[in-house]
Amino acid sequence: MSKAAESEGRSGHSMQGRLLMGLLALLNRPRVRFILPSGESVSAGKDVPVADVKIKNARALTRLLADPGFQFAEGYTAGDIEVNGDLSVLIEEFYRCRVEHGDSKGLAAQIGSWLRRARSNTLTTARFNIHHHYDLGNAFYALWLDPTLSYTCAYFRSRQMTLEHAQVAKMHHVARKLRLRAGESVVEAGCGWGRLALTLARDYGVRVRAFNISTEQIASAREAAWRAGLDDRVEFVEDDYRNITGRYDAFVSVGMLEHVGIANYPELGRLVRRSLTSTGRGLIHTIGRNAPLPLDRWIRKRIFPGAEIPSLAQMSSIFEPNELSVLDVENLRLHYAYTLEYWRASFEGARERVAEMFDDAFVRMWRLYLAGAAAAFRTGEMQLFQVLVTPRNNNDLPLTREHLYLI
Amino acid sequence: MSKAAESEGRSGHSMQGRLLMGLLALLNRPRVRFILPSGESVSAGKDVPVADVKIKNARALTRLLADPGFQFAEGYTAGDIEVNGDLSVLIEEFYRCRVEHGDSKGLAAQIGSWLRRARSNTLTTARFNIHHHYDLGNAFYALWLDPTLSYTCAYFRSRQMTLEHAQVAKMHHVARKLRLRAGESVVEAGCGWGRLALTLARDYGVRVRAFNISTEQIASAREAAWRAGLDDRVEFVEDDYRNITGRYDAFVSVGMLEHVGIANYPELGRLVRRSLTSTGRGLIHTIGRNAPLPLDRWIRKRIFPGAEIPSLAQMSSIFEPNELSVLDVENLRLHYAYTLEYWRASFEGARERVAEMFDDAFVRMWRLYLAGAAAAFRTGEMQLFQVLVTPRNNNDLPLTREHLYLI
Repeated sequence: MSKAAESEGRSGHSMQGRLLMGLLALLNRPRVRFILPSGESVSAGKDVPVADVKIKNARALTRLLADPGFQFAEGYTAGDIEVNGDLSVLIEEFYRCRVEHGDSKGLAAQIGSWLRRARSNTLTTARFNIHHHYDLGNAFYALWLDPTLSYTCAYFRSRQMTLEHAQVAKMHHVARKLRLRAGESVVEAGCGWGRLALTLARDYGVRVRAFNISTEQIASAREAAWRAGLDDRVEFVEDDYRNITGRYDAFVSVGMLEHVGIANYPELGRLVRRSLTSTGRGLIHTIGRNAPLPLDRWIRKRIFPGAEIPSLAQMSSIFEPNELSVLDVENLRLHYAYTLEYWRASFEGARERVAEMFDDAFVRMWRLYLAGAAAAFRTGEMQLFQVLVTPRNNNDLPLTREHLYLI
Repeated sequence: MSKAAESEGRSGHSMQGRLLMGLLALLNRPRVRFILPSGESVSAGKDVPVADVKIKNARALTRLLADPGFQFAEGYTAGDIEVNGDLSVLIEEFYRCRVEHGDSKGLAAQIGSWLRRARSNTLTTARFNIHHHYDLGNAFYALWLDPTLSYTCAYFRSRQMTLEHAQVAKMHHVARKLRLRAGESVVEAGCGWGRLALTLARDYGVRVRAFNISTEQIASAREAAWRAGLDDRVEFVEDDYRNITGRYDAFVSVGMLEHVGIANYPELGRLVRRSLTSTGRGLIHTIGRNAPLPLDRWIRKRIFPGAEIPSLAQMSSIFEPNELSVLDVENLRLHYAYTLEYWRASFEGARERVAEMFDDAFVRMWRLYLAGAAAAFRTGEMQLFQVLVTPRNNNDLPLTREHLYLI
């Protein structure tokens, strides 16, 4: 214990310690212990802390007090803040405190400032935003994603499934929802490394045109199509989804909507409508929220520039102006929490190689992002929606959803 | 053919005939032939008409030209307008013409005028509005509903099911979505004749408190509970859903939301939230729309005063302000078209007894209402949504929806 801390010992806290106490009170007293650079220990209550947060220098502490959510992440990334305990459980504690005590006023203010700041995803900025994240290199993602290179929520038909099996199960769940029949045509918006497109073509006998603006991913997908002998039935197009042309029996988009931007939803809906035949089906798989709320500022700055996570009401602006009937909405929230636990474990297993590719700060930044996302799905801060739609006039519909399960 | 019609014969139409032609052109040329009181025949095109509409006197024709949708229904009810052909197919033709040619501008105007006119469902007007429809007499509904007295959309696991079996299947589908376990408690808002409440108590071992403001229905439900020996586990409360108190493992409402009024949705959501335990489930089964649109004016005046049919975005105002997570949305639109075909057939079978109870005009009014509703569900003018929700923090969730189907 340093002398400064010792001198204040029993009598109370330093000025910064008192500020931090006040902040924790405002945050509804999360069960977390902070260790300040002086060695001073600060908690908001007497409960056993879920984790310790060690702030290693005065600069990090000052910044944390000024802008806590954002600067915690920046300080953790820089190595100026260390966590003793499970990072994801720590973040979960903050989420739970916020929800259990309600925070509607702060929420409204956040939304207001977010609406003013929201950046649009024009064709050019979209390209920049996508490159920022998805072009970190296929070698990087291959280190910790499952062998299908699926970077979206898996579907665990049982908790015993491996991540790889659950990712494959997700592809079949999507295909069954779309009721794909041999000879039909499918367009995919935002195809990642292409595994869904290849699976649909191979196992359901459909033709697929798959769009993506990530150069690295498209190159990898084309190679995989060629290796699988599917390059005559799957076309990977390096282009923005807004340039999709033609009519298809199915439109599918898994994990792209997060990057579309809410202001662009009606335009996306027009595209879905005009891309579908009169009996066509469309499926959008996306992270969602229970109510409108801006994406965490740090995540938007460091991880997903341009990303926006919609509520179902916000998603409705895709469908409602465009005579699209919503047939089915399924919330797979907990599946994403499980998916993220797999990713966190394999990311930690690969951290030395990731550090060689980038640096230690990058490892910490991504560790924090994955831990925070797991906490968000465990606490209901985030949801995962699969929404199935069809043109309003389509009466070629199954009576029940049994076909998804009776296999 | 009258002399007036004959004199204009080949050369053209009467003034009113020309006005009607103009009107049909504005309605995107439905394939319908009108026979005017003079005997003059008016169609908008050369296609074979789906039905003939005979206007029997000048007053009905004048009114029809001034306010077509509303006065068609009024004239049909009065017996001043007759239809040769299937009434439901006739209405379907008008819906299809409107959709296939788009009518967004007319739509916006309609919505504006509807918002200005919308009446609120206060506790008092709600009671009036509900009595108008549901207190026509249990004997009346017993004439043409299935034996379970279910006056909501059934669930046809196969097209071969009888209506009665499909209504029972609907109750079990709802119970399975709610994952009811023996010993749990359920509150039902708007319980009709009480059959769902009784089925849940008998087959799932739960206790049910069921609310309804229809005096006739509550009396009948209580008697049924007593006869079934379930009156110790099912309590029928003659009161407004807004007076529900207590906490329950499940909240269920089948076919009531249509009468709640969109302005009251956030209040309903608060009620759902405060009525549910932390692992509680809520299910709302309601007629819906693909996009906001006022309910047909005639239906609101003659059949369902105070009713409003929401889009999913409008329904979101129940859930999004109240930390309720949407787990599952299922659209059962075609099931309501099938249900209505059963009701239409049995209503026609009972028409003489209905005429004795009321009069011929009542028979025509209800025939038109049932035919129009069938057309609305066949064409996608109306949807049927079942929405399952839970408090945000509830992680006691099934991984899949297999339990709904693997029985």
